Amino acid sequence: MGRAVVLVECVPNVSEGRRPEVLAAIRERAQQSGVRVLGLSADPDHHRAVLTLVGDGDRVLEAAFAVAVAAVELIDLRNHQGVHPRFGAVDVIPFVPLGTTPMDYCVDLARRLGARLGQELGLPVFLYEAAATRPERRNLAYVRRGEFEGLAARLARGDDPPDFGPAVPHPSAGAVAVGARPPLVAFNAVLGTSDLRVARAVARAVRGRDGGLSGVKALGLPLPSRGTVQVSMNLVDPERATLWRVLEMVRREAARYGVPVTATEVVGMIPLGALVAAAREFLQAHELEPSAVLEHALWEAGEGDSAFR
Amino acid sequence: MGRAVVLVECVPNVSEGRRPEVLAAIRERAQQSGVRVLGLSADPDHHRAVLTLVGDGDRVLEAAFAVAVAAVELIDLRNHQGVHPRFGAVDVIPFVPLGTTPMDYCVDLARRLGARLGQELGLPVFLYEAAATRPERRNLAYVRRGEFEGLAARLARGDDPPDFGPAVPHPSAGAVAVGARPPLVAFNAVLGTSDLRVARAVARAVRGRDGGLSGVKALGLPLPSRGTVQVSMNLVDPERATLWRVLEMVRREAARYGVPVTATEVVGMIPLGALVAAAREFLQAHELEPSAVLEHALWEAGEGDSAFR
Repeated sequence: MGRAVVLVECVPNVSEGRRPEVLAAIRERAQQSGVRVLGLSADPDHHRAVLTLVGDGDRVLEAAFAVAVAAVELIDLRNHQGVHPRFGAVDVIPFVPLGTTPMDYCVDLARRLGARLGQELGLPVFLYEAAATRPERRNLAYVRRGEFEGLAARLARGDDPPDFGPAVPHPSAGAVAVGARPPLVAFNAVLGTSDLRVARAVARAVRGRDGGLSGVKALGLPLPSRGTVQVSMNLVDPERATLWRVLEMVRREAARYGVPVTATEVVGMIPLGALVAAAREFLQAHELEPSAVLEHALWEAGEGDSAFR
Repeated sequence: MGRAVVLVECVPNVSEGRRPEVLAAIRERAQQSGVRVLGLSADPDHHRAVLTLVGDGDRVLEAAFAVAVAAVELIDLRNHQGVHPRFGAVDVIPFVPLGTTPMDYCVDLARRLGARLGQELGLPVFLYEAAATRPERRNLAYVRRGEFEGLAARLARGDDPPDFGPAVPHPSAGAVAVGARPPLVAFNAVLGTSDLRVARAVARAVRGRDGGLSGVKALGLPLPSRGTVQVSMNLVDPERATLWRVLEMVRREAARYGVPVTATEVVGMIPLGALVAAAREFLQAHELEPSAVLEHALWEAGEGDSAFR
């Protein structure tokens, strides 16, 4: 008998959202490491894709490393134009504890992966969120400030050296942020306008750092291929600042400009608790709990295998 | 190695919603039969409770029989006043196929249980929905017409004999409807009024048989203990006539009388597909699928045990 599985999610964000063959190759590398790729969401305007890897921590670390190797090999940021901020070919690699896995375990994974990415791939590595080694680096936006284009000058200043790897950018792949964090929901609302100022104003209104909801990060981004704009959000406390509450606020703020929400999308995975919290609100089902979801109850009762076989 | 588990849900409805000790005794009998009791929802105004049993078909049949024995022993309909229609101490026993279990298997369970309830407990048994032996008996409301109080006269007419058991009511326990059906969502909306006419008008507007949504059955019921009224619904096609769509219609119809919805409740379990279908609509997340729910993806990937351990 081996040791028990320590279940971890890892959500590498790579700076490629347009070439399906590159994304297929990256996914293939992850799968060869023996983990499940639960999802792969690519966006051509963001020119970015999000992979969701799940499995035992050690295997997930290997898969994340394989994703990074492939991304560094196949993506050249010197020719990269997208609307989403980025400073690396493999831009961000967060580890997320699932089930009873402790956060400290994911912090350890982030440090182990960071050391390898620095040493073996020559990437400057910045640890962020729960893995951060300086308080200001908990914030990913701070870590990524100046993006790929500003990276060489920033590293040359020497006052903010990477946690691992060289203090110069990788020529084509930039740098990487590796972290540990709780689950979040990546949630984008598409607005019925091409006016980027509206998306930016709505983002400012809803995000915590400018007086909005404390569990929400938000950016207004253009979607040139669709001729529209988007409020791109991370809900970091989705059982309190829920999808419903956030979307209602986005709708109200956009309505001040006479602009409707035309669609939304969840990028990557949504935890059941976040979905139920939103449903509790929009359905006025004040007592609704995840235990009322049949599949959840079956799994907790140990009948899940039968239900899904 | 035994044969594989054939996973089935059974949702006995018993005519007791006020005496917790009776409900505890009924739950205890079910558990002694070796099945999981995933939930027990009781309502004092309905004077009714809903148990959710899950497990292998044969064991669930035994547990349902044990529930019936307890209900016949502990509940006397001659002293029973509640707002929900009923004609038996154990009023309705539907079997629901889960996972890959076929409906026919549940029809067979309904017939086997019905035969025992007739023979061993002396209950007149009517098979309904997928287990019905006459087309008109597919409809539970038809099977239960006249309720307990009208049962003796109805059986005496002899034109609608039970499928099993005597053609006279059990003196204290009436009759029982045993059936097989797909999953449904039992969904109640509480209105901000004590005027039963509003609840009835809203129920008529939303239910399929009176021109409303074809996937919806509805009754307007008073909730005397709460001084309010309720639209009590069964959503039989909850991925099309979704919780959101139904609730929006209830809200609009109630608003015609200046009445708000103050709360809703899901009685028993809600399938994940029904929850996601509703979220897809209220969130405008037109592409949202159950596979985006983290726990669902983990279950399908075979990592569920780890996630919930």
